[in-house]
Amino acid sequence: KDITLINVFEVPQGQYEAAVDMWVQSRDFLQTQPGYISTALHKSIGSDAKFQLINIAKWESAEAFQAASKAMRETSGIKPVKGLKFTPGLYQVILTD
Amino acid sequence: KDITLINVFEVPQGQYEAAVDMWVQSRDFLQTQPGYISTALHKSIGSDAKFQLINIAKWESAEAFQAASKAMRETSGIKPVKGLKFTPGLYQVILTD
Repeated sequence: KDITLINVFEVPQGQYEAAVDMWVQSRDFLQTQPGYISTALHKSIGSDAKFQLINIAKWESAEAFQAASKAMRETSGIKPVKGLKFTPGLYQVILTD
Repeated sequence: KDITLINVFEVPQGQYEAAVDMWVQSRDFLQTQPGYISTALHKSIGSDAKFQLINIAKWESAEAFQAASKAMRETSGIKPVKGLKFTPGLYQVILTD
């Protein structure tokens, strides 16, 4: 069963471009990893949203995602963005309509 | 262009069923409203996730969603869940893979 990675970002003033740039670098790395399915970066319509950016990605399993993010931390050399707070979590759909 | 409603829930101890039940009542109301497309309630795999529930819904426009949630507040009589914190936001996809 697919796993959904949802990562909500609190982007400090003036760090929006840097946050998007870091996301692009992460995507370029993660999409080469086993078990990757898809990803979509969402931007809030209102500028006053608490979470200005939210990433929603699909992976074949929790293990596949965890291995890929471990590899990214250890090898990709992607620089963190000052003050950027993010809260990633792995989810499964339980109810629809 | 479709609008994505992302609503992240911080669910207090012992209020999980009540939160899901409130979500079901809200879905039953909102899916009857103009501009509604789809919705999916996501549950975190880990029990220690900050946001145990995240709803991701699609609407035809921001206005359609705002009108529907206004109607829900004013007419549905759905009872709030004690201590449940939620942060809804309207989003558009800006980058994929």
